[in-house]
Amino acid sequence: MARQFGERPPVSMRVYNFAAGPATLPLPVLERARDELTDWQSSGMSVMEVSHRGRAFARVATDAEADLRELLAVPASHKVLFLQGGATLQFSAIPLNLAPPGCTVDYVCTGAWSKKAIADAAAFATVHVAADAKASGYFDVPEQALWQRSPQAAYLHYTANETIGGVEFPFVPDSDGVPLIADMSSTLLSRPLDVGRYGLIYAGAQKNIGPAGLTVVIVRESLLGRARQGTPAVLDYRAQAAEGSMLNTPPTFAWYLAGLVFKWLKAEGGLEAAALRNRAKAEALYGYIDGSGFYSNPVARACRSWMNVPFRLPRAELEQPFASEAARAGLANLEGHRSVGGMRASLYNAMPLAGVLALIAFMRDFAARHG
Amino acid sequence: MARQFGERPPVSMRVYNFAAGPATLPLPVLERARDELTDWQSSGMSVMEVSHRGRAFARVATDAEADLRELLAVPASHKVLFLQGGATLQFSAIPLNLAPPGCTVDYVCTGAWSKKAIADAAAFATVHVAADAKASGYFDVPEQALWQRSPQAAYLHYTANETIGGVEFPFVPDSDGVPLIADMSSTLLSRPLDVGRYGLIYAGAQKNIGPAGLTVVIVRESLLGRARQGTPAVLDYRAQAAEGSMLNTPPTFAWYLAGLVFKWLKAEGGLEAAALRNRAKAEALYGYIDGSGFYSNPVARACRSWMNVPFRLPRAELEQPFASEAARAGLANLEGHRSVGGMRASLYNAMPLAGVLALIAFMRDFAARHG
Repeated sequence: MARQFGERPPVSMRVYNFAAGPATLPLPVLERARDELTDWQSSGMSVMEVSHRGRAFARVATDAEADLRELLAVPASHKVLFLQGGATLQFSAIPLNLAPPGCTVDYVCTGAWSKKAIADAAAFATVHVAADAKASGYFDVPEQALWQRSPQAAYLHYTANETIGGVEFPFVPDSDGVPLIADMSSTLLSRPLDVGRYGLIYAGAQKNIGPAGLTVVIVRESLLGRARQGTPAVLDYRAQAAEGSMLNTPPTFAWYLAGLVFKWLKAEGGLEAAALRNRAKAEALYGYIDGSGFYSNPVARACRSWMNVPFRLPRAELEQPFASEAARAGLANLEGHRSVGGMRASLYNAMPLAGVLALIAFMRDFAARHG
Repeated sequence: MARQFGERPPVSMRVYNFAAGPATLPLPVLERARDELTDWQSSGMSVMEVSHRGRAFARVATDAEADLRELLAVPASHKVLFLQGGATLQFSAIPLNLAPPGCTVDYVCTGAWSKKAIADAAAFATVHVAADAKASGYFDVPEQALWQRSPQAAYLHYTANETIGGVEFPFVPDSDGVPLIADMSSTLLSRPLDVGRYGLIYAGAQKNIGPAGLTVVIVRESLLGRARQGTPAVLDYRAQAAEGSMLNTPPTFAWYLAGLVFKWLKAEGGLEAAALRNRAKAEALYGYIDGSGFYSNPVARACRSWMNVPFRLPRAELEQPFASEAARAGLANLEGHRSVGGMRASLYNAMPLAGVLALIAFMRDFAARHG
């Protein structure tokens, strides 16, 4: 280790971190966690060191759920679960819980994460792709009138925001009574949401919720109890709901930190206010890109993500200098996903407008020097 | 919230925390994590906020694996995985990966955690209980000469340390060439171990490794690639090994903290030194209990756990006063598991001998007042 245990670092500074996830977290949340890391609530222990079944942690768990319910106005018809394994484990858990063996499930494919969800579901059910954005290069969301739904699907699944492609659904699909399921990993909590329209919503925490290692599932209670034979107990939604998400030891520190994020978000005005900020941030960046004559974003305007803004430079050889100069200017993690290259700025809730304006100023300067 | 975000708590003190898990962590590790929580390695970001695929975190991941391999002398024949879902998810993952459909698996039952492992495995394979400690009241480990193994078992599973009962295997079973599998959640890293004798070892982190939400699996590479059809991708050991445990986003903060624990353990002299300390702690406490004429421990001497020491008071009505007076004396979380009652002192690596001596002094005083 570079430093001795317990030795304080000389300076503490922060950068604007545009990572797609694990992503930037609100500084007040981190400072709070730091200040009580060795002595939480005057217990003489870290929150990491106490039993998940003790009174003190039970309060953390119930507060976090109550705050999340309040933020999203989750109806009483829906259970909120705090699980492990990320969205990827949900790709399997969803068909295991909601698709009887041999049935068909409908998926809409709008990019890389849809494809992964489809591939994993195919191990458990017949996957029918009701619509595929391939013809648009995955830069658009097929309008619902053109979808070809299967008549007896157990559910309809879509990826509300494609983190890599930067494509976000501009509408909530009408599922005609079939349970509607959405991967909202990188869009949950970015704006208000009508949770009652969904059978199930899931999200890995490492974008707008907290650190990696926590997964939020919001599921209509009437859908529970259908898990097929051979579903691992930890993945059975009904069993987890019955145990308050503590069928097994939960990721307590991540849960605690998510609870702090929810309180921060409430203190910042909730999701209406978050939506105003997020819209302003996204409009500023897309507006600059479109008018720059230098940078470009290929996504159809109606489907541009508020959270993940991929963009290209006019020449690929400028990508590396752009990323390193930006990092030196305190604008970190602007490289695009390794599968697609280019640049990407993720603008989650914890990214302030000031960070986006600093990014735009840097981009303008960079373009002037290389245009 | 009681305090404003970012406001420092007035005093920082620590107690001796005897919780069974999530459990006490080394203070130097917590202090290090605290000091770099908002600015890790002068990056201007928390370790929680960086990509698991970036260079900086890759170093954390490889260092943690290298240090764990060094501590346990893991042979090159074995892969080390850093997963999610706890030991409980492994109860399902193990048969999914290692037991072909329709086969028989052998389990030894020595208490509550064995029973859970058996119940979950029964969804995937025919479980044969080769030995059951029921006759002893689960206070002993049946000697291996009496086990009734099935001829074609896919593997032999045992629970190396029963965290609730305080029963620890005093020997490594001879599995006669069948893969030997052990739940080592509450004993891994307490002493040296001959990893080469095992097909697979697994452990939830929240005892000797780090915070809850991380699971370590050490598996012989030649056993990989047998996962049955319908194994969720995240649970497929071969797939996770191929991706360096990053098939999905890993619990980065827990992994980082585990890495700090491994470095702390190395600095403290490794597992030989840990074994000396743990033996001394356990012998001091059991010795005092046995000689007290007041407290009692029911476990056969050869099978007493070094890590979890359950004990009884002469009258059940003394349990509540004992626990609350101990807590006021800075000795926290001595209540036994809710399923069995009584008291329990967990003595993981991060519990110093001084804590055990303070507990004994308190117990002596309490006995004098209530004897």
